Amino acid sequence: MSACLFCRIAAHEVPAQIVAETPELLAFTDINPQAPTHVLIIPKRHLGGVPDLTDEHAGLLAHVMRVATHVAQASGIAASGFRLVVNSGPDAGQSVAHVHWHLLGGRRMAWPPG
Amino acid sequence: MSACLFCRIAAHEVPAQIVAETPELLAFTDINPQAPTHVLIIPKRHLGGVPDLTDEHAGLLAHVMRVATHVAQASGIAASGFRLVVNSGPDAGQSVAHVHWHLLGGRRMAWPPG
Repeated sequence: MSACLFCRIAAHEVPAQIVAETPELLAFTDINPQAPTHVLIIPKRHLGGVPDLTDEHAGLLAHVMRVATHVAQASGIAASGFRLVVNSGPDAGQSVAHVHWHLLGGRRMAWPPG
Repeated sequence: MSACLFCRIAAHEVPAQIVAETPELLAFTDINPQAPTHVLIIPKRHLGGVPDLTDEHAGLLAHVMRVATHVAQASGIAASGFRLVVNSGPDAGQSVAHVHWHLLGGRRMAWPPG
């Protein structure tokens, strides 16, 4: 069994409120939501963070954007807008060392972004 | 001459403090920085926003991640960490309708991300 929380969620070993799933990606509600819509999008295969993303992951990255747009549409916030956030490393507050995209919307997002 | 500010910056018609440039992408300092490092990464070719990103842009998206990691390394914040943010639409505060990735670091980033 993997020690990585997001690998375990991807393997359906740990429950999550799943909003979209493809063979490559899982999208689920953040357990500590910061906006009316706050979804995490993760690759099912373990990848640590942004510095691990190479040309090999090009298709995956395009897929993340398509799933983000799909989730925004399904949540009714495609037109009102949404923010995508990826944290890399301690200063950014990356809480799980498995790369994940936060999708937030359904309210006016403030600036700066944290 | 394009009416899009970021197209004009990409074409070097409007000056910017450029930190990285490739045939496809430009990275330059945000004119209203929100962190010690605050760089915008844009595709040179006009793309409106996240919903416009398709499989056609897979290579571009991988390239954005590589440039982000390069800029973080060159800024000395690869280990301390950085946040990548993309705003899509009015609620997110997308200020220029040309897709751009904000890279922020050099300080502890707060949560929520805006």
